Order: sequence, then structure tokens, then C-alpha cells
Amino acid sequence: MESAHKSSSYFNMKALILNFIMRIKKLGKDDPRRIVHSFKVALAITLVSMVYYLRPLYKGIGDNGVWAILTVVVVFEFSAGATLCKGMNRGFATLLAGALGVGANYLASLFGTKVEPIVLGCLVFLLVASATFSRFIPHIKKRYDYGVLIFILTFSLVVVSGYRVDKILELAHQRLSTILIGGATCIVISICVCPVWAGEDLHNLIVSNLEKLASFLEGFGGEIFELPLEEDIVVSSNEPDKSFLTAYKSVLNSKATEESLANFAWWEPGHGKFRFSHPWKQYLKIGVLMRQCGYHIEALNAYLDEKFQASSEFSKRVQEPCTKMSSEAGKALKELAQSVKSFTSPPNCSMHLQTCKKAVDEVNTTLKASMVGELDVLEIIPIITVASILIEIVKCVETIFVAIEELSEQAHFKDLLNDGEKSQVHHGGAVASVDDDDEEEDKDFVKVIIHKITSDSRKIEDNRG
Amino acid sequence: MESAHKSSSYFNMKALILNFIMRIKKLGKDDPRRIVHSFKVALAITLVSMVYYLRPLYKGIGDNGVWAILTVVVVFEFSAGATLCKGMNRGFATLLAGALGVGANYLASLFGTKVEPIVLGCLVFLLVASATFSRFIPHIKKRYDYGVLIFILTFSLVVVSGYRVDKILELAHQRLSTILIGGATCIVISICVCPVWAGEDLHNLIVSNLEKLASFLEGFGGEIFELPLEEDIVVSSNEPDKSFLTAYKSVLNSKATEESLANFAWWEPGHGKFRFSHPWKQYLKIGVLMRQCGYHIEALNAYLDEKFQASSEFSKRVQEPCTKMSSEAGKALKELAQSVKSFTSPPNCSMHLQTCKKAVDEVNTTLKASMVGELDVLEIIPIITVASILIEIVKCVETIFVAIEELSEQAHFKDLLNDGEKSQVHHGGAVASVDDDDEEEDKDFVKVIIHKITSDSRKIEDNRG
Repeated sequence: MESAHKSSSYFNMKALILNFIMRIKKLGKDDPRRIVHSFKVALAITLVSMVYYLRPLYKGIGDNGVWAILTVVVVFEFSAGATLCKGMNRGFATLLAGALGVGANYLASLFGTKVEPIVLGCLVFLLVASATFSRFIPHIKKRYDYGVLIFILTFSLVVVSGYRVDKILELAHQRLSTILIGGATCIVISICVCPVWAGEDLHNLIVSNLEKLASFLEGFGGEIFELPLEEDIVVSSNEPDKSFLTAYKSVLNSKATEESLANFAWWEPGHGKFRFSHPWKQYLKIGVLMRQCGYHIEALNAYLDEKFQASSEFSKRVQEPCTKMSSEAGKALKELAQSVKSFTSPPNCSMHLQTCKKAVDEVNTTLKASMVGELDVLEIIPIITVASILIEIVKCVETIFVAIEELSEQAHFKDLLNDGEKSQVHHGGAVASVDDDDEEEDKDFVKVIIHKITSDSRKIEDNRG
Repeated sequence: MESAHKSSSYFNMKALILNFIMRIKKLGKDDPRRIVHSFKVALAITLVSMVYYLRPLYKGIGDNGVWAILTVVVVFEFSAGATLCKGMNRGFATLLAGALGVGANYLASLFGTKVEPIVLGCLVFLLVASATFSRFIPHIKKRYDYGVLIFILTFSLVVVSGYRVDKILELAHQRLSTILIGGATCIVISICVCPVWAGEDLHNLIVSNLEKLASFLEGFGGEIFELPLEEDIVVSSNEPDKSFLTAYKSVLNSKATEESLANFAWWEPGHGKFRFSHPWKQYLKIGVLMRQCGYHIEALNAYLDEKFQASSEFSKRVQEPCTKMSSEAGKALKELAQSVKSFTSPPNCSMHLQTCKKAVDEVNTTLKASMVGELDVLEIIPIITVASILIEIVKCVETIFVAIEELSEQAHFKDLLNDGEKSQVHHGGAVASVDDDDEEEDKDFVKVIIHKITSDSRKIEDNRG
């Protein structure tokens, strides 16, 4: 009995460990850069500590070694932008706080030895209190939070570190040089050895989010009306892959990720196709518009449970333009994703977007024609709602189109076609600016003058046609 | 000319500074705890640094003082929970890494003086790499991220700090005692002097988010059908306050805040009405359901631009039950907010929720009756859509009701009524658990078996009636 119990608990143990190993493996497989990052950090720390360990004049680790290792541990982040942000913040804050600390010590020394500690205490108290409060200012919190922290630390250390100015200068010099060594090691390794660019991640995130929205819209018509799936969605196994119906949900929660990536991207030097002043803010605008579209899709999703049997005359007639509207909106988004992915301008007037708008008119006409006579109201209400939400989604897709056109101009995307009429399009692009310093969470909601954009872009396309 | 230019730039300067001061003032006014927090941090740092500054055996600042000040600067966070989290992480990580470091040193010393640095280097490299990788494991990232960082730091420092074990033990002892002093100062000040509880913040956030959703729903009917506002919304000035129409938007983006607050609340000791094992996870579930409701409201909001003139017979007839449905759903949410706020159980069967459901039936009946004969399709489509989305919102409100009933049971809220039939309600509360360790962002979407809940709770209320 006991041995059976033992062996079962042994197997339990084994299963747990295997499960753990599987999860670790999956983490590494999902993003192999994580493994590379781990080795990069280990390399940096080993390098810095070995320099201090092996140098000839070694007499136990001094302050120097401590600060260099500490800097590497704290500054080395996953992306190059984040590492640069922290490194720069640390360097400049140490410099500024060191200078202020020396000044404070000099000022206090004028009061005589008895009053000096009190003056220093008051100075530390006041400066720390105001610096801590400044961390609540949104702009500082966003970009210089770590710098203020280091400022507080260094100032307190320098002020408390001793009476004589000459000693302080030496200390400040030592600390700065070690921090420079540590920081430089981090920055060099993080930029030169398989760099992870936050900007590139943001770019890819926007593309993949566009694709997720597109996949939902492309598949939605087939799902809700129980049609066979669209041709271009290849179903491999017997059970069709329905993941495209839920993938869009991650778009709804990508705000925090997008903002931190854009923030880090701001610190990164130009690299590859991204120049130094790449319009990262425009990516945030596109993110806002995509989430807006996602909210409508979420509302739409509630109707997926109640599949419409295309039994009645009414639903049969509405079904076709609705499916077309949805799948064309999806294709337009895919086209946009492709153009962002390949750094090319989106086509001046998207075929899919036009087909989409035609389908909107068609839906309206069909509805108008079909609503005569007695109808089963419980059947038609959801269909009308779905059609109506789809029309809103088409409006969203149009605003995303305009925002990506703006992006392509700001970031100098390759223009595959001639850009004769291009400048006109932007009159419609009335996407109000995202206020940078605004703390409130409402800032996610760029006021989009949808109607203006819709009518303007229609006018333009009428002119073209 | 020049003086005019000078004075204008002087006024510009003055306006800028005044503007800056106004913004700072607003920051403090919005949350006075920010000012208190700044003074608390300043107090802690001044205390710790003065202890080292004034002690009799002062001979320049040693490692000790550095580590105590450093600990205070880095550990002191806005809420008591976050401070505890960082303090505990720092303490235990230092202990563990110190012990491992001593072990590593002993191990390496067995190989002889020549090979020792190489063995130590390899050990540092391996341990740092695996510790860094472990920071990507979601569970560790969520709760012990800072601990792992400190582990890496302390281990590298101890390993590099010297050959002899006796010296290392002394160093480890010194570092631990100073970290304890710094950490204890932080924790005592943050808990005893005007504490900011993350749990209380989370509780209040949920209440205020419920109220925001409720305000929108209460006012929506009046807005879209251009009715006079509901009686209970007092309009003070001539221009009516429309902020309730946009306030709900902050609910959509509160996921990150809720999660970090719940995470910090986990570390907090029992206080006030919150016991030690308060069900913080249930708050996250409610948050998910509220966002779901918010997404539907966002879809509804798109129709606010096109106000319906209650001109036609059709819209006049649908208007009344729709307005009732919306405002009753709002009142039900207000009631829930009130009950969470006052730590009392929600009423067994909410009057408002019942009126709400009756209004749903009424809308369906009215629509059925009105859809006969020729109608202006462009007018009725948006009305039908609005009614249909409102019905979805009522379903959301029901799920929120069930989730808050669960919360009230788990957190032992005061029960104002007898709870005879209460246990029945929970059979319908099929809110699937939020998977804790799941990294994917999709986790925000608790699968809610809406239909089950709806039908179950209807049954229950039928039994009661």
C-alpha cells in the first residue's frame, strides 16, 4: 500500500516537473529573444564583475564594483529603448544630483559645524519631498520616473557622505565613472548583440492587431449566416479553426503595451527602416482607432451565439450584402496591414473599401425593400442590429485607413503608385491630436469626426472615379 | 520695441510658470494623498540618513548607510501593499542570494586559487541567465519580479566580493541588517502614517466604475430621444452637464490599474472592513464584466450623434420602454454600487432589475406590434439597433449582479434582509474562473454563460413572484 502511495506521489511529482519544463520550453519557444536576453544580461554582469574581480590591484570589492554591477542589474531591460531610457536617466540624474549635493554641502558648511547637520537634514527633506511629488506629474512619470528616483538616491548619499568637499568630489567622480562603465556595457550589449527594438515590436504589434481584426471580419459573415467559409481561409483539419473569432480580443487590451513600447521607441536611435524621428505617436493614434473598431466587433460578437438560419426570405436577402460588407472590410484591413508591414503606402483608393461602401448602400436598399409586409420581428431584430453595427465598423475602417495614410506620409513609406491626388485625402483626415501630457485615461479616445471623414473621402473617390 | 518685446516675453514666462503652478496644484488637489506620500518618503529618508549621519562612531559613510538609504528610496511606494511587496521581496531575495553566494564561494574555493575565478564566473553566468529568464514566467513576473532582480544583484555582489568565507558572512550580515532597517522604516511609516491601501483603492475604483456605467445608462434615454433629463439628475447651470456621457470611457481602460491594485492588495494585512483573505480576485471578475458592459455602451454611444426626433408613430411608441429599460438598468447598477460601497449584500431580487426585464419584454412586444405596414427604414434601423444593444446591456447588468452577489458572500457583507433563498441564485452564477497564471491577454474575457444566467435568474424570480 505504502509503496503504491509512494510511487503515485512520485509520478505526481514527475508530472508536475514535466509540466513545469513544458511551460518553460513554451515561454522560450514563443519568443526566443527571451533566451537571448537572459544570456545577454548574464554576459554583461559576468563581464563587469570579472573586470573588478581580476584587476591586479584587487583588494576586496570597493564601492566602485558595487555600483557598476548594480547599474547593470537595474538598467539592463528587454528592449534597447528601455535600456537606453534607464541608462540615460541614471547617468544624467547622478550628474545633476551629485552637483546639487556638493552645492548643498558647501551651503551647509557656511553655517558652522553645529548647525550643519540640521541644515543638511532640512535640505534633504525638502528636496526629497518635492522630487517625490514631481513623480506624479504625468510627463515626468512617463519619461523620467527612474531618473528622479536616482536623483533622490544620489542626492541623499552625497549629502550624507561627509563633510569635506574634496572627498565628495572624489566620490562623485568614482560613482559617475563606474555608472558610466556599467551603463555603457549595458547599452553596447543591448544594441550590438541581437538587439530587441521596442519600435519594431510596436510596428509588428500594430500589424498583427490589424490582421486580427481583419480575420474576424473576413470570417464573421460565414459564421453568423452559416455559410461555407470564405475561400481564402484554408481549413486544414476536420474541425475548422475558430481561433480567428476570439483573436481580436487581445486588441482591446493592447493600450498599455502600445504606450510603453512607443515610450521606449522614443529613446531608440534610427535602425533599419525606422529613422530617428519615426512618427511613433501616429502608431498610438492607429491603436486608438483599432480599439474603437474592436469595441464594435465585441458588440457584434454577442450575436454570434444566435446563428441565423437563413430560412426566411428576409434574412436570405440581407445575408449576401452583409457578408460582403464584412468580408470586404476585413480585406481592406488586411491590405492596410500588408502595406504597413512592407513599409509601402496604402493604395490611393482601396478597391475593397469601395466595394465595402457599395455593400453598405446595398444593405440599406435591401432592408428598405424587404421591410414591407408582415415579418417575424424576433428574427429580423438581430439581423438589423448586426447590419447596423457592421455599418459602424465600416466607418471605423475608413478612419483607420486615413490614419494609416497619414502614417505612411509621415514615415515616408515607399509609394508604389504616383501620388498625384494624395494630398487631397488628408483634408478628410481630421484625427484630432492625442494630447501628450493628458493624464486622464479618456485620452485613449481620439475624437474622430467620422462623418466628416466619410463624406470627404467619398467626395474624393467620386472625383477619382 | 525691444522693451516691449522683453515685457511680452516676461509675461509669456509668467504665464508659463503660473500655468505650471496651477497644474501642480491640481495634482495635489485631485489626490491630497500624493502630498502626504511625498512628505512620508522625505521623512523616511531623512530619518535613515540622519541615523547614519549623527551616530557617534561616524567615519564617513560606509556600505551600511548606502544600503539603508538605497533600500528606502527604492522600496517606498505609494500604497502600503506595494511597499510591503517590494520590502518582502528585497528581504527574502537578499537572504537567499546571500546564502547561495556563500555556498558558491565555498564550492569554488575547493578548486584551488587558479581555477576559482573561472568557476565563479561560470556560476554567475549560469545563475544570472536562469534567474533573468525566470522573470518571463508570468506568475513570477507578477509577484516576485523585484525579488529576482535583487537576487541577481546580491548573488553577483557576494560572489565577487572576496575569497574568504568569514569576510563574506560579515558582509552578508551587514547588508541584511541595513536592508532590514531601511525596509522596516518604510513599512512602518507607510502603514502607520496615513496609510494608502491598494485594496481600498481597488474597492473604490470598482464602485466608481459601476457608478459611471450607471450614470450613462440613466441619462442615455433622455439624450437619444431628446426627452427632458431624468428627475434625479440635478442640472445646476444653464448648460446641462453632459460629462456622464463620456465618464464611462475610463472603465474601458481600467484593466491594468485593477490588476496592479489587486496584486498589491494581496500583500496587505487586514485593515478596516477588509479582512486578510478578502476576495480580491472577485473584484477582477467584476471588472471584466463591467468592461464587457462598457464595450456595449461604446457601441451604443455611436448612435448618440444621430438624435432621433420622436416624430414618427414608430419611434414614439418604442421610445418609452427603451428609455425605461436604460434608466432602470442604470438604477440597478447604482443600487449595486451603493451596496458594494456600504459593504451590504445586494437585495435578493432587485426591483430595478425586474422592471428592467419587464421593459425588455415590452420593447419586444412594441416592436412586434409596430412593424406592420410601411415604415421609413432609415429611421427605424438605428432605433432597432439601439433597442437591441440595450437588451444586451441588460444581460450584462444581470451578470454583474450575480458576480457582486458572489462577492458579497465571499467577503461576508452585511445582510440587511434574510437570506433564505439566497443560495439558489448562485446556481446561475456560472462565471468561469479567471485563470491566474494565464499570460495571454485574452484572460480578460471571462466566459460568461449569459443565457444560462438569464434563464436561471428568471426562473428564480418567477418562483419568488
